[in-house]
Formats: sequence, structure tokens, C-alpha cells
Amino acid sequence: MKRFFPILEWSRGYSRDTLSQDLVAAIIVTIMLIPQSLAYALLAGLPAEMGLYAASLPLIAYAAFASSRVLAVGPVAVVSLMTAAAIGNLSLSNPAEIAVAATALALMTGLMLLGMGLLRLGSLANFLSHPVVAGFMTAAVILIATSQVKHIFGISASGKDLITMLRTLFGNIGDTNLITVTIGLAGIAFLIWARKGLKPILLKTGMPDKLVSILVKTGPILVVVISTFITWAFGLVDHGVKVVGTLPSGLPPFTIPSFDLDLWRSLLGSAILITVVGFVESVSVAQTLAARRRQHISPDQELIGLGAANVASAVSGGYPVTGGFSRSIVNFDSGAQTPAAGAFTAVGILFAAVFLTPLLYFLPKASLAAIIVVAVLSLLDFSVLRKTWVYAKSDFVSVAATMLATLGFGVEIGVSAGVALSIAIHLYRTSHPHYAVVGQVPGTEHFRNINRHEVQVSPSIYSIRIDESLYFPNARFLEDTINDAVSLDPAIDHVILVCPAINFIDASALESLEAINHRLKDADVKFHLSEVKGPVMDRLKRTDFLEKLTGEVFLTQFDAVCALDPDCANRAYHDPHP
Amino acid sequence: MKRFFPILEWSRGYSRDTLSQDLVAAIIVTIMLIPQSLAYALLAGLPAEMGLYAASLPLIAYAAFASSRVLAVGPVAVVSLMTAAAIGNLSLSNPAEIAVAATALALMTGLMLLGMGLLRLGSLANFLSHPVVAGFMTAAVILIATSQVKHIFGISASGKDLITMLRTLFGNIGDTNLITVTIGLAGIAFLIWARKGLKPILLKTGMPDKLVSILVKTGPILVVVISTFITWAFGLVDHGVKVVGTLPSGLPPFTIPSFDLDLWRSLLGSAILITVVGFVESVSVAQTLAARRRQHISPDQELIGLGAANVASAVSGGYPVTGGFSRSIVNFDSGAQTPAAGAFTAVGILFAAVFLTPLLYFLPKASLAAIIVVAVLSLLDFSVLRKTWVYAKSDFVSVAATMLATLGFGVEIGVSAGVALSIAIHLYRTSHPHYAVVGQVPGTEHFRNINRHEVQVSPSIYSIRIDESLYFPNARFLEDTINDAVSLDPAIDHVILVCPAINFIDASALESLEAINHRLKDADVKFHLSEVKGPVMDRLKRTDFLEKLTGEVFLTQFDAVCALDPDCANRAYHDPHP
Repeated sequence: MKRFFPILEWSRGYSRDTLSQDLVAAIIVTIMLIPQSLAYALLAGLPAEMGLYAASLPLIAYAAFASSRVLAVGPVAVVSLMTAAAIGNLSLSNPAEIAVAATALALMTGLMLLGMGLLRLGSLANFLSHPVVAGFMTAAVILIATSQVKHIFGISASGKDLITMLRTLFGNIGDTNLITVTIGLAGIAFLIWARKGLKPILLKTGMPDKLVSILVKTGPILVVVISTFITWAFGLVDHGVKVVGTLPSGLPPFTIPSFDLDLWRSLLGSAILITVVGFVESVSVAQTLAARRRQHISPDQELIGLGAANVASAVSGGYPVTGGFSRSIVNFDSGAQTPAAGAFTAVGILFAAVFLTPLLYFLPKASLAAIIVVAVLSLLDFSVLRKTWVYAKSDFVSVAATMLATLGFGVEIGVSAGVALSIAIHLYRTSHPHYAVVGQVPGTEHFRNINRHEVQVSPSIYSIRIDESLYFPNARFLEDTINDAVSLDPAIDHVILVCPAINFIDASALESLEAINHRLKDADVKFHLSEVKGPVMDRLKRTDFLEKLTGEVFLTQFDAVCALDPDCANRAYHDPHP
Repeated sequence: MKRFFPILEWSRGYSRDTLSQDLVAAIIVTIMLIPQSLAYALLAGLPAEMGLYAASLPLIAYAAFASSRVLAVGPVAVVSLMTAAAIGNLSLSNPAEIAVAATALALMTGLMLLGMGLLRLGSLANFLSHPVVAGFMTAAVILIATSQVKHIFGISASGKDLITMLRTLFGNIGDTNLITVTIGLAGIAFLIWARKGLKPILLKTGMPDKLVSILVKTGPILVVVISTFITWAFGLVDHGVKVVGTLPSGLPPFTIPSFDLDLWRSLLGSAILITVVGFVESVSVAQTLAARRRQHISPDQELIGLGAANVASAVSGGYPVTGGFSRSIVNFDSGAQTPAAGAFTAVGILFAAVFLTPLLYFLPKASLAAIIVVAVLSLLDFSVLRKTWVYAKSDFVSVAATMLATLGFGVEIGVSAGVALSIAIHLYRTSHPHYAVVGQVPGTEHFRNINRHEVQVSPSIYSIRIDESLYFPNARFLEDTINDAVSLDPAIDHVILVCPAINFIDASALESLEAINHRLKDADVKFHLSEVKGPVMDRLKRTDFLEKLTGEVFLTQFDAVCALDPDCANRAYHDPHP
């Protein structure tokens, strides 16, 4: 029971102390989350209130199932961009249809996460290698920042790749609204200054270090309050400043998501990508934070928590959510002890949805854009390019290709191409496993690589040791290697495959071994195995391979060579340097 | 030079003996190839003469570059079916457009094969695991046989999946032409009898065994001659028997393939699949036959040979070709010694194209269908299902899924789904590498798995040995395993990663090691490495990982434990059972 409902564990020891710590964290995260949720909904191309909805019920659902104590779930930048791309694919123009598609996407994402969690398939996230994630994130940040430039200039632009975005931006640059630009750039300047310059000032007042770090991160709410007030006070809407406008007041609407099969089919690919990218990001944040307090998180349980959060988002008018990076750190630093902090945050957002929405009418879109730009630019990190270049060229290729594909063709093609490429590189690498042709170390029963050690070999015996399990990516490599050796050296009468490092032989590799045996038989060469591990031998016994084997299976390589060449024992027990 | 032009090698020793052996083989293969090439063109949905064209110039091009001495290249059943599917995707109805698409497909396939050969990417064929190939071939055979039923019944049917084919067949079964059915079924019966019953009869006449085996395989030409004569003599065309009709007489036309970008884009996926499937089939036949004479083939050189053959097919009005299974065996058994036999075969086919085409007017399509059905049904082999079920369930899933997807959705979705699934299963398996928590064997400096041996451990030290290289599919597994261990056992102060089996650490795994180091630091646990291989260490030195490492790198696991726990040396040098 406790495995599926971690809430049963942490709620038991819930004390007044824990409550007050969770409440403090919840208040701080709420202040941070109100502007962020509005801004990310804007980024996703959705009505601003959907951000608030995605930041309320999902947090409560996550709290009920989560294994992480401090992960802060809700709308995040990258998933919002991916939502925009997914809905962009559908070429909808009716806002009601767009909202329906967004909730359907949340439901699909939620069901996939739940399914993966129940089937314990958290390890599927391994498909996303670190170079792919790093290249994708860097490119996504650039796309997100560029997509906000239109709001800051008060012009229109479109496109899901960098080239199209920049072309449409430059095409409309003449429509720039100067007051909007002023608001946007002032917002950016203030937020950057708040990060760098505000901290020393606050520290001088003697406030504790932790409080200062948290206060600095509430800068966005100040931008919201001040820019809204100015826009209202000076009637800037009449001067062309675009504002959030009327937001519906009230609790999130109960929504029955669409089950339109055509809609689901066209969103399927996007939902898979959002599921995987969202999960990978969440788990890595959750693990990092859990380790700091030596707590335990279960990736499969996180899948269930995130799945529940997305289903909750779907039935309350929201869109796909996941664990946020900076928000979770604020939650942690503010002292959140249990997932209840998330539930309290949800209450704060619900309060905002009911009472504060009228106040947000005059909030300029440029301010929200400024908040997004500063939030994501701090995530920009090109060092991975240099780092992988120095460390391993194959990884560098993955990073660079993913980055370029994402910038050039958008998030969906970018991440798909990156995954495909990194898997191809991986298969290519494992298709050339480490191997050694071995000979006997004189005076011993040991066999070592003939290229690295002074060893003795019998001309009629070819002994090859493969240092990896045999499966389809490397099955043909073994065939080719043995074929080549035998066809180039007519003296060979025996081939011995030395197997101490082989943990598994799949059906493809078995087929290759059969082909090797068959071809060697045609060439009058016997095929032997030595040092086969127990479980591998058990599997081979279920086939007729051992019956058809022209040679024998030997317990040790020494036994094998001695059976085929009587000199072997002499070499082992006579000192080569008398 | 000889590496790229194997012809330089075999042509030097070319004697009158070799010539006569090659000529005999060429005559036999030509007799076999004439009906097959017409039949496979029909299967591909192309005019019958394109089969002859694909069986002439490509054979000469292959002979110039091939490393296999006996592979017989030309139109084959599976690639013809895939060509039909590729062209079917385009929904063309104009025969001229269909021919243009077929030559474009041959050109694309040829260029891809050449490109892979020049880049020495033969190992990319590893993406096709044996279960995928076996499942795909079995399903393709069923689809091919079913697709010919319409010709045998003289009705129309369509579809690229089994369900659609069967539905349209049953829908039109009322139109059955009885004379056509008689011809078709008689052809099938004769061909099956020729395989089984003719052999003993011929053997009784005292003919050599080898000659009999070859004569039995020329049955199709008899079917062609007899059914054509009967159809002409009795005027069966007037009774509704569909015939091949007018074939253009003359040499293959020089063709400039289309470079229409839209056409290329829509054929791209199909061309990739044909390239890979065709290459894998060719190489496995070529390797099997080469081994019998202890000859050497180079997969990369085969790519170049097959690429040249397909480019030749494209410029001479043909369609995609590859190495044929049964035809190569006949070539081999007939005594072909060099690729020149293929070139002589091409001359035979050219002769047929110039002089014999008028005679083929009355050849019934039902006879060609009978030839195809009998040829492919001999390839039908369900034993792989039972074999993989017994051997490894994961491979069985690959076979069954590929087979069902091919039958249910056609060859292209079938093989793509199979490849994706087998790669996913492989990644899932490698994402859970073999590992062991190790302890010290008392009285020794050795460390062994604590679950299998009586060993002693220091409670504050957690030593884990991973028996595989670290790369992205298993990077997170290591993180999770160490996270779990440390969070569940508060006594742990040191984690030692024992690395003797780690040949490579990719950037994802390095990131995981950094994350482990970082998280252990947060939890006040030191992270050490032991027994790191030289090349791995060299790579790590290029990063700042070793500087940030909270613990140390030890040469041996014994050194590591002794440095952290002074009892270690006592355990090693005091007899535990005095």
C-alpha cells in the first residue's frame, strides 16, 4: 500500500512544525507561480487562465501520489513550448478548439505517464541521452526567448523554427510599439538586476542569506504589480499596449476532455514527446533535491504522480504539466517538508483564480514575456558543446545535431532526430565490441591478448575472446571477424570462442553462431566454445545448437587448447626461460 | 585498387576452364531467371519487360564491383513486393508514371547502397535483428502468395495488408475464370511435383545427382513453354485468360531517372527499407556461399556492388534489385566460379529481351503467379516462432510483433515497427546491466558478489561492480541503484564503484557519475572508483570529474577498502578458520 500511496507514510508523522514549514514554502511558491503560470500559458498559445488552472488541481493530485517531497509541479517553459508546437500542428484558429486540444493533450500525457508507471517502465526515459537533453534544452531556450520577442515589441510573428520566427519578426519590426518595448525592456532589466544587484543590497540590511535568495526570486511579482498599475494609471491600452484582458473569475471549470479519435491520433506523437521530456526533467530535479536530504524517490512512483497531475489538469481546464526546475529549488530552499506544500500552493493559486483575476486585466503581455525571457535565459548553457567536444566526439555530434535540428525544424523534429541519432550512434558503437585474439602465457594456464602480451599460439587454433554479451547489434561483427580470419589463414583447423564475458546471447547472435558453425563446417574447421557462463549454457541447451556444434564446449580455455594441441600442457609446466 | 575492384583479382587468373564453368552456370541461371524476372515484375505491379531489364545490365555492373564470386543479383520476390508497396503509396494510375517511380526508387536505393559502402557503414544493417528479418520474411511470403491468388483465379483484388487482400479477393470470387484457375493450379501442382516427385525419376535414369538438382529447378521454364503453347493453340485469350501481351522487343532502353524532389521525398522511407532489407538478405546468402569454398566477402564491397547494380537498373529501365537466395544457390551448384557468370547471364537475358519477347505474348499471368507462389512458399518457415519461444521470450515478441504488423499493415509499417521494437527491447535489456555488490573473500585480497559468496563487508562501505560499459541506456540505472542503497542504509559513508568491466563511459554516464558524486556529497558520503581501465581513465582526465570527485581513484579494490577500513588487511592475512 505504502509503495503506491507514499502519502500514507509522510502524513502519519505530520506535525504542527511540518505544517508551518510547508505553509511558508507554499506562500513563497504561490507568489512565484502566479506570474509564471500566466506567462507559460501565453507561451503555449493558450488563454492566460489555463495557466492558473494547470497550477491548481494538478498540484493536489501530485501531492496524493508523489514520492518526491519537494518537487513543484505545474506549467513549465519547455513543456509549454512543446504544447504550442503540438497544437500548432493542428492549424486550429478557434480558441475553444485550441483549449479542447490542450486538455486532450494533458489527458493523453497523463494516461501515458500512468501507464508507464503501472508497467514500471520508468527506464524507457533512458532513450533520452544526456547529450540529446542538453542540446534540446539549449535550443528550446533560444526558441522560447525568440518567441517572446514579439510580445516585447508588440508586433506579430509566428513559426516553430528559429528561421521562420526571425523572418516574421524582422518583417513586422516596423509595427513596433515604443511604449510596449519600454515596458518589456524595463521588465527584463529589472529582473536581471534583481538577480545580480538586489542580493548584495538586501544582504547589507542583515536579512538572513536564505531569505534574501528567496526574495530575489519573487521579482516577477513586482514586475507584474508595477507594470499593471502603470498601464492602468496612464491608460496605456489606448496607446496600443497589449494586455492580458478579461480573465474569467472563479474556480477551474470541471472539463470532460475530448475523446475524438482523430484529434488523439494527430496529438499522439506530441504527447509521447511531452511525456518523455517532462518525465526526464522532473525525475532529475526530484533526484537531485531528494539526495540533499538523503531521501528516496522512486522513478516509477513519480510517473504515477505526474500522470495523476496531468489527468487532473485535463479535467480542470488545464494543459500538460511537469516538475519545474527553479520552482522546485525555491520550494526546497523555502523549507517545504512534504508534498502538502504543493497542495497549499494550489489553494493559493485557487484564491488568485477566484479573487485576483480582475486585477490582472491591465497586466501587459510584454511584462509576462520579460518574465519568461529572464527565466529561460538563466538556463542557457553552451558549455555542454565544449565539454562533449573534449570528452567524446560521438556525444558532441549528438548534442550539435539535436540543437541544430531543434532550431531548424522545431522542438518535435529536434528531439525525435536527436533520440534517433543517439540510438544509432550507440548501436554503431556496440556493434563493434571489444575483442581479443588470445594465446597462452608461457609457463601458465592463462590466455591473454596476442597483441599485448608475449604469448604462444598453436597455428591450427584461432582463439577469440569477445568482451561483451552477444546480441543483434554485434552478432554480424562476430561472423565477419571469424569469417575473415579463417578465409585469410588456411592453417586454421579449430576456432575457439572464449566466453567468460558473455552474459547473454540473443536469438540473432544464436543465429550467427549457427551460421559460423555451419560455414566453418563447410570449410572443414571445427568450432568450439570455452568458459561459457551457467545461465548462457542453460539457454543454449534448450536449442539444438550444441548438438550441431562441430566442436566441443570446454570448461576452461586451457582445457580447450590442451584437448586440441598436446603441446599446450608442456608450455604450461615447462619454464620458457630455463 | 584491388580492394575497390575485386575484378582485378579474379580476372587475372581467368582460364578456359573457368570460362566454361561460368558459361554452363550462366545458361542454367538464365533459364531460371527469364520466367522469374517476368513474374517478379508482375508482383511489383510493373510491366513484365522491366523484370528482364532489371535482370540484364545490373548483373554486369554487379560483376564489375562484387566481392562475392557467386551471388546472383536481379529482381527478387521480397524487394518486388516492397517496390509494389512503395509505388502503391504514391497512388499513381498512369503506367508511364509508375515506371518512372520504379526507376527513381532503383536510383535512390543504388545511391544509398553506394553511400553506405563508401562510408563503410555495412554495420548499419545490424539494425535488422534476426527475429525481425525472420518475422518479416514469413509475413512477406504470406502476403506475396496471397497477392498472386487474384492472377490464379483471374479476378481483381488489391490492398497491401492481408485483411484488405482477402476481403477484396472474396468480394470478387464470383468473377473466377475457370480456365485461368485450371492453368494456375496445374502450374502449381506441376512445380510442386517437380520438386518432390521428379527428382527420384531423373535419378533413376542415372544422371549425376548435381545435374538432377539443377534440372528440377528449371521446372518454371517448362510451365512457361507449355502454358504459353496451350493458350496460343486453343485461343484461350478469347475465353478470358489474361496473358502477358505485347512486350517491347529490343535492348533495355537507356533511361534518365527522374530527379523530381517531391517524388524522391515520398519514396525516401521506402528506399531506406529496400536498401536495408535487400542488403541484409544479399550479404547473408553471399557469406554462406563464400564460406563453402573458404572465400572471403567484404560486406562494404557488397554494398558497392549492389549499389552499382541498382544504379545500372535505374538507367536501363529496371527497378530495385538485390541478391536472390535460390538463384544464387543454383548458380553456385551449377559451378559458377567468378562474377563473370553473372555477366554471361545478363547476355542471355539480353538475348531473350531482343528475340524471345514476341513468343511470350500468350504467356498466361496465372502461370507466372504459380511460379511465384511455389517459389516463395518454399521459403515459408514458422519454426522461428517455436524456436524463439523456447529460447528467449523477448526475441519471440520481436518475431511475433513484426509478423503481425507486416500482415496487418503491410511490409513498410511491418519492418519499421519490428526494427523499432527490437531496438527498444535491446535498450531496455542493456538498461539493466548485470551488477554485483561485492565484499572481501576472507583470507584473500579478492572481492566477490555478496549474494553468491561468503564474504566480509565493512558496514560503512558500499562497493558495487558493474559488469558492462556505462552509456546512456544504463546510466540512470546506476544512479537509481546507488541512490536507493544510500538512502536505505544510513550507515554508509563510502561508495566504491568497481570498474574492471567498464570499457567506455559516454557523456550521459559521465553526467550520471557527476550527479552521483554531487548527491553523495550532499548526503556526506564519499564516492570512490577502483580498477579503472587505462583508456577510460585517460578520458576522465580530460574533464573536471576527477577534481570534483569527493573520494579517490584506487588501483585495486583491495587498496580502496584498505584505505577506508584498516580491518581489511587483517581480514586478508589472517586465516578466517584457524
